[in-house]
Amino acid sequence: MMLTVFGSTALDTIRTPTKVLKDVLGGAATFAGISASFFVNTGLIAVIGKDFPKKYHKILASRLNLDGLSVKNGKTFRYDGKYDETLSTRTTLRTELNVLENFHPVVPEQYKKSQFVYLANNDPDQNVALIKEFDRVKFSMCDTIEFWISTKKASVVKMFKQVDAVVINDEEAKLLTKESNLIKCAKKIMDWGTEYVIIKKGQHGSILFFEDVIFPSVGLPIENVVDPTGAGDSFAGAMIGYLTSKKKTDLATIKKSTIYGNVMGSFAVQGYGLEGLLRINKMDIKKRIALYEKITRF
Amino acid sequence: MMLTVFGSTALDTIRTPTKVLKDVLGGAATFAGISASFFVNTGLIAVIGKDFPKKYHKILASRLNLDGLSVKNGKTFRYDGKYDETLSTRTTLRTELNVLENFHPVVPEQYKKSQFVYLANNDPDQNVALIKEFDRVKFSMCDTIEFWISTKKASVVKMFKQVDAVVINDEEAKLLTKESNLIKCAKKIMDWGTEYVIIKKGQHGSILFFEDVIFPSVGLPIENVVDPTGAGDSFAGAMIGYLTSKKKTDLATIKKSTIYGNVMGSFAVQGYGLEGLLRINKMDIKKRIALYEKITRF
Repeated sequence: MMLTVFGSTALDTIRTPTKVLKDVLGGAATFAGISASFFVNTGLIAVIGKDFPKKYHKILASRLNLDGLSVKNGKTFRYDGKYDETLSTRTTLRTELNVLENFHPVVPEQYKKSQFVYLANNDPDQNVALIKEFDRVKFSMCDTIEFWISTKKASVVKMFKQVDAVVINDEEAKLLTKESNLIKCAKKIMDWGTEYVIIKKGQHGSILFFEDVIFPSVGLPIENVVDPTGAGDSFAGAMIGYLTSKKKTDLATIKKSTIYGNVMGSFAVQGYGLEGLLRINKMDIKKRIALYEKITRF
Repeated sequence: MMLTVFGSTALDTIRTPTKVLKDVLGGAATFAGISASFFVNTGLIAVIGKDFPKKYHKILASRLNLDGLSVKNGKTFRYDGKYDETLSTRTTLRTELNVLENFHPVVPEQYKKSQFVYLANNDPDQNVALIKEFDRVKFSMCDTIEFWISTKKASVVKMFKQVDAVVINDEEAKLLTKESNLIKCAKKIMDWGTEYVIIKKGQHGSILFFEDVIFPSVGLPIENVVDPTGAGDSFAGAMIGYLTSKKKTDLATIKKSTIYGNVMGSFAVQGYGLEGLLRINKMDIKKRIALYEKITRF
């Protein structure tokens, strides 16, 4: 296994202005892993409960190596959130950790050789413990969310020291660093010991930071946005998947990986839940990358 | 005169977290005109009161043709606004129209041959009346603001029919069209009869729309942002100034003009009030365009 993705697999209830989805397959690692799977064989480390629907297991199995998927007594992690009319703000209505609460992730032997590892927005202490179990990591990347920034900031900072790249959305970067300027946010995060910082800005694209290099990239404008759930995770999964497929981590390749991130995010928002990713193929991605290159040229 | 800019000249009070500026030179046409003046000789149509400081008149005179500047009995238009800590939200504390209230703009004879005309965020009825006084307009562009959208929406729509391009910020585009998706916003505006729509997104850059072409461009990331006042006007002024200097209005040139818009906006935010524009020269612009091209390449 060249790439391992560790994170949550969930049953999501997503309330959008146009549709309500109940208990659909979701979770940061699900989106990131499936997004990465278009580029490379991807191993998943996650946990589900006995209630996890067979059809969802089938979807995961068709896309990912599941040797790292634990099935525990109890219910699968559940998330319930509601978008506003403009799809720009999501309010969490309910979170049930369930089997995620006391999950102790184990890295399968055949994953330990992964040179690329993506740690989704898990407990930062758990991420730090997990990354140490890999023998020959060439490039590791993590994300984090408001919950950990608010409850375990020191651990988040410690986690950043342990990885090569931090991918984080703009609001969370501001919250974490107490800066409002994104360059200042990124500098602070780099000062904490990570080499690459990628700030995700949703529809506005992303900015990659490395030493004194700044690489801003636009988001691909999309008209039929129906559900932004998982777009950021799809972005991260595409980045790490692309890098793994290239077996390279030079700056030019990392820049390019953020373009793949924007493109996979653009697919994600066009479908409800995972639909946007599940209905495409490699050719669709290739075409959209070409479109991205074409429309941004001047 | 190849380019005429019509709009407000103001005495601004700007309250930023780091500095309060009292009665400094500002106004949409001031920023747009001075920004355009780096590219081409620019004629200003505006009004000031008898209280307008000589030193500000000198600044305008050193950059712009002032045959169209009326001096009226009374006080100059005044604006007072306060930014929040993050510089992302500005609250208007006070607006005094003063001489702007009953201003009847007159187009000087030698401006009537202008092939390029920029109508800043003036009363839309006034903009419509004014554009008709030009004999051979090749390309006209207008902006608008929340005040006119809220009080004279029909006139705003009518104005859009009369111009070749509408430049508008994202929040105002959403307010006007009652759409939250920027592509949908732009389509609605184009349906009203304008050919080009440029949606400004502040630090996130802009998106240009023309027929089925979409051209998104990033904002240049800037670390030392001190005052965003006039950045959007500087963007528009740079666009029209660049187009006038090229005497071209094909799509490729208009695309390029939005890059100049982003770059001039990036200078504007680095100084208080007009400082950011007044301290640069053509070489600084050239260098920053080269920087923009370099950092966005992938």
